[in-house]
Amino acid sequence: MIYMDNAASTQCDERVLAAMYPMFNSHFANPSNTSHSMGEEANGHVNEARRLVAKNLNCLDSQIVWTSGATESNNLAILGSIKATQSAGATRNIHVVTSSIEHKSVLSPLEALARSGVEVTFINPNSDGQITVADIVASIKDSTKLVSIMHANNETGVISNIEGVGQILKERKILFHTDASQTFGKFNLDVRKLGVDFLSFSAHKIYGPKGVGGLFVKDEAKIQPILHGGGQELGLRPGTLNVPGIVGLGKAAEISYVQRETDANRIYEFRKRLEAALMSIHPAITVNGHQLERIPNISSVSFPVKQGLRLTDYINNIALSTGSACDNHDRAPSHVMIKMGKSVHSARNTLRLSIGRFTTEDEIESVISELKLVTRGLLT
Amino acid sequence: MIYMDNAASTQCDERVLAAMYPMFNSHFANPSNTSHSMGEEANGHVNEARRLVAKNLNCLDSQIVWTSGATESNNLAILGSIKATQSAGATRNIHVVTSSIEHKSVLSPLEALARSGVEVTFINPNSDGQITVADIVASIKDSTKLVSIMHANNETGVISNIEGVGQILKERKILFHTDASQTFGKFNLDVRKLGVDFLSFSAHKIYGPKGVGGLFVKDEAKIQPILHGGGQELGLRPGTLNVPGIVGLGKAAEISYVQRETDANRIYEFRKRLEAALMSIHPAITVNGHQLERIPNISSVSFPVKQGLRLTDYINNIALSTGSACDNHDRAPSHVMIKMGKSVHSARNTLRLSIGRFTTEDEIESVISELKLVTRGLLT
Repeated sequence: MIYMDNAASTQCDERVLAAMYPMFNSHFANPSNTSHSMGEEANGHVNEARRLVAKNLNCLDSQIVWTSGATESNNLAILGSIKATQSAGATRNIHVVTSSIEHKSVLSPLEALARSGVEVTFINPNSDGQITVADIVASIKDSTKLVSIMHANNETGVISNIEGVGQILKERKILFHTDASQTFGKFNLDVRKLGVDFLSFSAHKIYGPKGVGGLFVKDEAKIQPILHGGGQELGLRPGTLNVPGIVGLGKAAEISYVQRETDANRIYEFRKRLEAALMSIHPAITVNGHQLERIPNISSVSFPVKQGLRLTDYINNIALSTGSACDNHDRAPSHVMIKMGKSVHSARNTLRLSIGRFTTEDEIESVISELKLVTRGLLT
Repeated sequence: MIYMDNAASTQCDERVLAAMYPMFNSHFANPSNTSHSMGEEANGHVNEARRLVAKNLNCLDSQIVWTSGATESNNLAILGSIKATQSAGATRNIHVVTSSIEHKSVLSPLEALARSGVEVTFINPNSDGQITVADIVASIKDSTKLVSIMHANNETGVISNIEGVGQILKERKILFHTDASQTFGKFNLDVRKLGVDFLSFSAHKIYGPKGVGGLFVKDEAKIQPILHGGGQELGLRPGTLNVPGIVGLGKAAEISYVQRETDANRIYEFRKRLEAALMSIHPAITVNGHQLERIPNISSVSFPVKQGLRLTDYINNIALSTGSACDNHDRAPSHVMIKMGKSVHSARNTLRLSIGRFTTEDEIESVISELKLVTRGLLT
């Protein structure tokens, strides 16, 4: 089995594991109890991780709030900022702008808000899979309090112009959230340049552990907690801190800070080879999304499969996705592909192949051979 | 430093770590993507953990919802069940009963509900630290929709009669939640006997990892999610499943199932020795809470310290708590001790000493020596 599903989750880097290990059996105290040195020590490791992550985002350590992952971060940013807006007096006539190709952990909390009376505009992407600044500007109203646009899409890898959006929203004093799950630790992200108020990220997309992530919060006065408990994380996120997970996230961020360009260049070469080879199989095979403004590790490839057939039924040796892992639950076709104008049949025959740090050249060649073999006789 | 803070968090058992390890670097696929065998495999490990935890609670596998820990579980049970009650038509006149000595992750979401118009009754404990069935029954109204009472208190270890409460609430069709963070994996818990609808638990109190826990949900129709996203966990809790954490929780539950009695007996002997020795230091030293109905691993001991002094300022070699770890943030005296009738000075001079699987006899003797030495000259 060749793993080509790195956009869904990644293998933990051995260096990350090595950093986490002592947190399980040596520095295991509750970091909230700094009345004894073992708690203080655990808290020190948490703070070092905070520094490493903040360095990756060019923000203050105190602007990082640890969560259980990007899904929770997205919920906290969206539900928490609207709650704060409501507490500040705007109890009705609240408008939020987002895109129709966001991850479900952005779409679902916004749909919940919509059911409670918040007006939400879902902007469709252009045929390149991009959300344009012009479309966002056109959708802004006097009542717009929040805009949530993902940095890079998790199915196509297409990047939207967050910096351009950020500049406009800053002038208009509208809160801006971006889900950076696919770019954190892979890109040189600078929250000041991006102009965002909230930025979501997780560890398990960058060779760190599952179950931990964070939210950059520019100004804690603009957000309220959605979970309640002890006073951890500036009162914004309660619960015993996941010390091993947080230390793992910090280490993953530190490693990525050093080698993200090397990784990206290598992965980009693999993708070029992969896409060129796949497109040579059949003239109607297409790579989806903007060809330049795209993160290097994701390939969304549509195959002109005969009606009634499904390509993935024939693939046995490659771990990949059609749509995101979450879409898998209901076996629905990818909402991203549908919004980009694909038919259900075409969406179902679109493969997301995502490359990672541990992908080898041999694996890329095997994927090409396997797909050449498998598609024989299936294509129109 | 001797670790006597096992009620705050525990050292990870090496067997738990060994079970988790392959999940980081071999079975690292996203378990929601069962379209490929690596995802299926990861999902298989999650389901095996589900089976092990369900066995510990005598419930169905499908009644376990994974969360990031007991704080989230408590929030989900309380906010989610009230949300479901409201969706079912009861939009006003909702009453909830709880105790004033619950953990903050129960008190805080209930305080948030109270601010939104839900009526909440906080029952005080008797001088033994117990919440009596009679007091709960007396507080029930026609509008009571939910009762949330912890199984064992995290500061005194005192157990309340959950089974007795459960029987009464069942007859009256009132939802019943218990925070079993201090008893899960240490007691023979049977959710059917207890008569609960929701039961919260976490891994890091039973020699598992931090950042993972769960909620027993008797009937999913009685609860709604508080975080929104992919359809994971019956639609009740979204986010990429924390496979290593969940497997660690499963392993910790499996180990505890086998050795919880051996552990408890050993720990109980240690506590008897500790409490007897401490009480011999000074006649006014008291062990708080009901002397029989108490879990074996927690000792809450009040010292008659001279006014103006604080015992913990003189203790350097023992990791312990005054109040819970969460109370540590605001340096407030323990709300549990205050509600049990202690003065602020006495609450501040109450030590919670909590013993664990890895505590040794030598450590117990050292704690006794240290406290004998330290208290010299400090007591009235």
